[in-house]
Formats: sequence, structure tokens, C-alpha cells
Amino acid sequence: MTTQTYIKDGAAIYEQSFAIIRREADLTRFSGGEADVAVRMIHACGVVDAARHFIFSPGFETAARAALQNGAPILCDAEMVAHGVTRARLPARNEVICTLRDPRTPELAQKLGNTRSAAALELWRDRLEGAVVAIGNAPTALFYLLDMIDAGAPRPAAVIGMPVGFVGAVESKAALAQRADLAFATVAGRMGGSAMTAAAINALARIGI
Amino acid sequence: MTTQTYIKDGAAIYEQSFAIIRREADLTRFSGGEADVAVRMIHACGVVDAARHFIFSPGFETAARAALQNGAPILCDAEMVAHGVTRARLPARNEVICTLRDPRTPELAQKLGNTRSAAALELWRDRLEGAVVAIGNAPTALFYLLDMIDAGAPRPAAVIGMPVGFVGAVESKAALAQRADLAFATVAGRMGGSAMTAAAINALARIGI
Repeated sequence: MTTQTYIKDGAAIYEQSFAIIRREADLTRFSGGEADVAVRMIHACGVVDAARHFIFSPGFETAARAALQNGAPILCDAEMVAHGVTRARLPARNEVICTLRDPRTPELAQKLGNTRSAAALELWRDRLEGAVVAIGNAPTALFYLLDMIDAGAPRPAAVIGMPVGFVGAVESKAALAQRADLAFATVAGRMGGSAMTAAAINALARIGI
Repeated sequence: MTTQTYIKDGAAIYEQSFAIIRREADLTRFSGGEADVAVRMIHACGVVDAARHFIFSPGFETAARAALQNGAPILCDAEMVAHGVTRARLPARNEVICTLRDPRTPELAQKLGNTRSAAALELWRDRLEGAVVAIGNAPTALFYLLDMIDAGAPRPAAVIGMPVGFVGAVESKAALAQRADLAFATVAGRMGGSAMTAAAINALARIGI
């Protein structure tokens, strides 16, 4: 019945966590800015080895940071992603948008013969130009985004595409990783998810390190 | 520029995902009900091997299911956990409560000399009796819960305690795993997180399998 002893200072917990990750993870192939993003992504999943699977396109980090500084909206495929973004950290009171629960989405999904997660992207069209896209849950959303862009939709400034899972996740992220026309961050393989995606945004939103 | 081919039926994606997980994961040490929870937790993190670290106390699954059926509130440490809980699946329109952003929480944190995540639990006191607790983010919240209970706070029906991370996560989950007086689910080691925690709730909330 003795009260437990543990660190109770949030800032100290973050600092120690990041120090442990930097000590254990192999971040040598990343730039300094990419490493900052990678550290937070590792922090979100608890697996140091996940870093082996992180892929950042050349210029991704610069493009995503610049877009956020310039007030780009953050378009999220899932409520969990949207709610993982730390609002106080955003540099320009950026809007965080998730259209999954928009009343129009279910009907769009039926019409398109696709998931609600994919159909919700139709409601992004007028915000897509220069936006930061954050897809952490649905492979169908990432596939749909790439198809939309190929069909002439406005181009986001950066795509964080890291859906987690067993059906379509590997394939949709492999498709993203082949794009020379997009600035992107992804995680090869099955890992990923809302927390890792939101962590990437939170790292990019921070001014300085 | 050819449109990609991928599965666009949400139900089929879930079904195939769960089938892959059941084929690949070693679930033999779990009961049928525990295995259902484990499958969804694996689905949330994309790592089949994570199952090795899952711990369910005897009676956890039954206690948690019964509490949800009886309308127990779900007390979450993080907004991401709360927003990962599928409302439509809840058997008794259960309340999903997160007090992290309650205006009283910052002052409580200062007074207690603890994180906001821990302090937020003070605002759970009058809902804690028979509740289902879902801690997926903050080790300090899990430590604080155990201390509150030891100090005589009302007892939840079940504790899903699986914070992710590098400082306190391992230790707080080890402390939970030693409790013979609580029905709990946890993940030994660093893995865990909001998505896995919400997935456990979503599995338990489902009637039947």
C-alpha cells in the first residue's frame, strides 16, 4: 500500500523519453529534421526498430514545415488522428479537418462504392491545394488520394501516409513511396497508425526542434 | 496513371484482416473471448508478435463485458482513446469520458505536483465505481489510478491499462499486472497506446464475437 515513486513532470518525461530513443535508435540515415520526426514517431509506437521502416521523400520535411507555418490546413482521415494533433503546438492556428463523420460521407461512399474513409476525401477537394494530408488509419483513403491526384485533383504540399494494418496498408504505402511527384512520409510494412501520424504532425508543427 | 485496384468494402477488409491475424498470431494461451480482444489489439498496431506481451487477468473479459452491457461509463486518459471508441458499437449508450481538457485539470495538476494526465483522474472519482477505465497514453495516469485505489477510491469493474512509451510505461504496467484485486488487461513492455486501448474497448463492446 505504499505510494509508488515515479516521474511526475511531463516535460522531464518527454525529455528522458526522447533521449532514450536517440540513444537506442539508428537515425543515421535521416537529416536532423527528419530525425526529430522519427523520434516522435517512435515515441508514439514504443518500438525503436520501427525507424528502419520510415521513409521520407527528399524535401518532405521542409515542405511540410513550410506549409504548416504558412497556415495550411491538416486533412485527417480519422478522428483519432485529428484528436492526436496538439492544437497549442500548431504554428498558424492551422485548421484540423476530418470529414469522416460529415453527414454527406455515407451517401458518397455508397455512390462511389468505396469505404467511408475514402469517400470522405471527396469533401477535401476545395482544401487540398497546398494542404498537409495526414492519413493514419485507412489504406482505402490513401489509395483514393493517389487516384484523385492522378485524376487532376489539387496537389497537397505534403502527405503523411501511414495507415496501419493487414489488408491494403502495405500496398497503399508502397504506392505512395513510389511517387516522385509528392512530398511524403510513410512507414513501409504493416506498422503505422493514428498515433504515429499525429506524432509526425506534432513534430513538424514545432518551431525549432 | 491507371486507377489502382484494391478492396473497397469495409466489412470485407475487417474480415480479411482478422483472418490474417488469426492465421499468423499465436493465440493459444487465450480464451475465446480474450482472443477476440487480442485480435483487435493486434489489428490496431500491425504487429502480430505483440500478442506475446498481452496479459489478461482471470475474469477480466467477463467483468469488462458485463460492465459495458450494464451501462458502465468508459473513463479515458486521452482524447485519442475516447475518439477511438466506436460509439455505435457500445451496448448501452455508455458514456465515454475524458477529463484531460477539463478546465479544472491544469490547476489540479499544479496542486498535486503531477501531470495533467494524472490529475485528470481526480475528476473521475464520482464515476469510478464499476466503471471501465481505459488508459492508453500516460503512465502517470496508470500509476495515479493504482495509488487512488490503494488510498480507498471507488473500484472500477475493469482496467485497460496499456500506456505506450519509454519512461514509466513498462513500470506502470508491471504494477498493474501484479494486482490480484483488479480485473485488468495490459501489454507488458513498451508497446501499447491509444489505438490498442480503444481497440480493446471496441472488441469488448461488441455483442457476440
